[in-house]
Amino acid sequence: MPAVAAFVVAGGAVALLASLVGRSVEQLGDRFGPGATGVLQSALGNLPELFIGFFALKAGLVAVVQAAIIGSILSNILLVLGLAFVVGGLKHGTQRFDSDRARTSTVLMVLATAALVLPSLAQYVHAPAAGHEKALSLIVSVILLAVFVLSLPAALKRTSASPDAAATAPAAAEEQARWPLWLAVTLLTAASVSAALVSDWFVNALEPAIDALGISQAFAGLVIVAIAGNAIENVVGIQLAFRNKADFAMAVIIQSPLQVALVLAPALVLLSLLTATTLTLVFAPMLVVAVCVTVVAVAFIVFDGESNWLEGSTLIALYAIIATAFWWG
Amino acid sequence: MPAVAAFVVAGGAVALLASLVGRSVEQLGDRFGPGATGVLQSALGNLPELFIGFFALKAGLVAVVQAAIIGSILSNILLVLGLAFVVGGLKHGTQRFDSDRARTSTVLMVLATAALVLPSLAQYVHAPAAGHEKALSLIVSVILLAVFVLSLPAALKRTSASPDAAATAPAAAEEQARWPLWLAVTLLTAASVSAALVSDWFVNALEPAIDALGISQAFAGLVIVAIAGNAIENVVGIQLAFRNKADFAMAVIIQSPLQVALVLAPALVLLSLLTATTLTLVFAPMLVVAVCVTVVAVAFIVFDGESNWLEGSTLIALYAIIATAFWWG
Amino acid sequence: MPAVAAFVVAGGAVALLASLVGRSVEQLGDRFGPGATGVLQSALGNLPELFIGFFALKAGLVAVVQAAIIGSILSNILLVLGLAFVVGGLKHGTQRFDSDRARTSTVLMVLATAALVLPSLAQYVHAPAAGHEKALSLIVSVILLAVFVLSLPAALKRTSASPDAAATAPAAAEEQARWPLWLAVTLLTAASVSAALVSDWFVNALEPAIDALGISQAFAGLVIVAIAGNAIENVVGIQLAFRNKADFAMAVIIQSPLQVALVLAPALVLLSLLTATTLTLVFAPMLVVAVCVTVVAVAFIVFDGESNWLEGSTLIALYAIIATAFWWG
Repeated sequence: MPAVAAFVVAGGAVALLASLVGRSVEQLGDRFGPGATGVLQSALGNLPELFIGFFALKAGLVAVVQAAIIGSILSNILLVLGLAFVVGGLKHGTQRFDSDRARTSTVLMVLATAALVLPSLAQYVHAPAAGHEKALSLIVSVILLAVFVLSLPAALKRTSASPDAAATAPAAAEEQARWPLWLAVTLLTAASVSAALVSDWFVNALEPAIDALGISQAFAGLVIVAIAGNAIENVVGIQLAFRNKADFAMAVIIQSPLQVALVLAPALVLLSLLTATTLTLVFAPMLVVAVCVTVVAVAFIVFDGESNWLEGSTLIALYAIIATAFWWG
Repeated sequence: MPAVAAFVVAGGAVALLASLVGRSVEQLGDRFGPGATGVLQSALGNLPELFIGFFALKAGLVAVVQAAIIGSILSNILLVLGLAFVVGGLKHGTQRFDSDRARTSTVLMVLATAALVLPSLAQYVHAPAAGHEKALSLIVSVILLAVFVLSLPAALKRTSASPDAAATAPAAAEEQARWPLWLAVTLLTAASVSAALVSDWFVNALEPAIDALGISQAFAGLVIVAIAGNAIENVVGIQLAFRNKADFAMAVIIQSPLQVALVLAPALVLLSLLTATTLTLVFAPMLVVAVCVTVVAVAFIVFDGESNWLEGSTLIALYAIIATAFWWG
Repeated sequence: MPAVAAFVVAGGAVALLASLVGRSVEQLGDRFGPGATGVLQSALGNLPELFIGFFALKAGLVAVVQAAIIGSILSNILLVLGLAFVVGGLKHGTQRFDSDRARTSTVLMVLATAALVLPSLAQYVHAPAAGHEKALSLIVSVILLAVFVLSLPAALKRTSASPDAAATAPAAAEEQARWPLWLAVTLLTAASVSAALVSDWFVNALEPAIDALGISQAFAGLVIVAIAGNAIENVVGIQLAFRNKADFAMAVIIQSPLQVALVLAPALVLLSLLTATTLTLVFAPMLVVAVCVTVVAVAFIVFDGESNWLEGSTLIALYAIIATAFWWG
């Protein structure tokens, strides 16, 4: 199946470039303090996913893009969080993460997810608004991006003052020497441009692969695109759990779905205005069901302040069940 | 637009009288200790909303009344709580509210909301019970009122023993001298009677205003009636947040939607038996969706025990999104 | 009504045998340490409910079995928990239960319930998977049983190391002398075999009783079968609350619905392969609504870490409302 082989290679290239963008951002951010790193990561960390989403929209693959948005959230808070719990729990027993930061991020994630799913829910049940899903999606997108912009100053300040950051910065420094500034900027530019090109290639390879594998667009977006777009950046969270930094692992893992809801999804809705395809925030009902059930369950896990490998296994099991439901999808 | 002008004046008069009833109750309650104040406020604080609801039912405006019930809950836990977080957060940074009281009120709010929405959910999905919505609504109403009556002794005792009350009572005393008993009783009676008359006028002005403005009954109930009925009493919660009494602010703000669910909604259902219009607890689906999403999100915020202005902004944004969805409603 | 009388006698016999199985398991487990008791109870404690479910499936009473599964969860976390709160609260005032164990069990219960309801939700809203409800139910059942098996080592270790168990073991020892081994084994075998025979009788008496009483299959399963199958084992939780062991009462009461979701429901799905009747995890929508609303509400109560009799009354009220909705069902 040459279509599948081409797709796998393209997926690998996307994952590698996503990782390279992330590394360049870290190096660049280091120059301006840890606060700037956080802000840069928030703004640029989702760049590869944004490229994939944009090219998929141009190709008219709305179902793939919508499933990938929800899939990014689910793969982070079910699969990655579950793996972090299993890895951390098997090595260190029950782990505790009591930082206010994880709980505050979770509260924002709950609120952002609520805003994200309201246009869908209005569409399903609220007949009078049903004809206005495009307007409502645009309004919600602008509001979510505004909340993201408002969150930047706090993110800047919080990260720089955070004891977590102080504790992990030396560890990070041990692992890798600082790159020269020109190298970081050049690499970031090169990686971003390459990510754009490769994303286009990845999307072009996606449709033949879907046909060759006989899977649905929803499954391709929810599982394959979502994992390829987040793969390497997610390894960080699992590594932190393995090193028993449960607090920091949780903060990193929860941050990612929050950015999907606050930045990636609304940005794609606005970018879709530039394409012939209209992307609204009216998702397929099963995507909304899956993300609502998952976010509530994960919020209780974060508020519990404890994790063990059994909870991790159950999260992974939940991910498997949802993926299975979309297999026929 | 004279219709709109008349409506705005009537709305202002309702808000003023609602505030006057609240002040009279406080003064009267003072005579009998802080416990009695709480009980009196519980029983009489919703009097103006009850009048508006009753006259609106007599005018056959069921959609307005149902939207106003849910709108009262939403405007309290999204708009007022959001404003309290923003005002408190901008002035004092991150605020903490760890009192058991806020969490206990929230748990009761979650339970009461669950009971309140069950008749709607049964109606949507449970075919056999669908023909019995009136009976089920009456049973739920009687049960909710019974829970309210059972809560009175605890409210009486808890308030009087509460360190919060002790801490704020002097502050309240500083601001205003105690009125003579005859004045408090006379004012309460006069304000209540006036509130009844003005509510009738407000409801009469409502329909022409809805036509003149071209808005839906649902939007009028959810946003305009809900805010007019709660306006001034809500200022208290925001003021407390501004004075950095986050714990007490939270308790006051959560108390209000709890009373809507435990007293106002069931009382209106029972009162509707006296009118030609039947009010059931089967709300429009979007109202149920909005209140369920909101109550779960807010419960996590209260359990987090912390607030900042970003969370506040997000709550206000969520309110704006819900109001927008009903704009076409 | 001889049909009803026969049914009541059979129900009483089931409840007694369920209690006898539980006692024999405790005695037997004592030989091998408290950890083994927990594991044995997990495996055998639901034996009578399993027999009832199996014979009801053989009789083709799918609606009864599905309602009884959800009813077992609801009666535990609404009725039994509510009674424990009322009894404990009236005798001891506000009770606190801060153990990590209750919260950890609750998190697992939320996750297991999420998995349990996903096939139903997929069936309602996700057209492509709708034809595969049997396959999806089997997959979810196998996954849930796998999570249960994975939980056994932790349960074994946790129980033996738990200060709760240490604190209550002497209390239990005071009440009853240890039975000889041969007696415990014989009684367990005899009680299990009798439970199987009596369950068959109970199910045979069920259908004429439903006809004689004129109630629906859903109500019979949700309320009557669920309470008969759990009756005596639940008394333990309420007794613990009465003795002010709120922490341990909570852990015992939350454990029961967790086992229903992790063991009883999936085991019945797999056992139904041996009968002519197919049991899937696609429940009637109102059952799913009731269990979702309830699990979220109860999770907040556990996370609050406090209970009083008013919360208990509200839980019982919620149970009454749900039962009423199914009365017409």
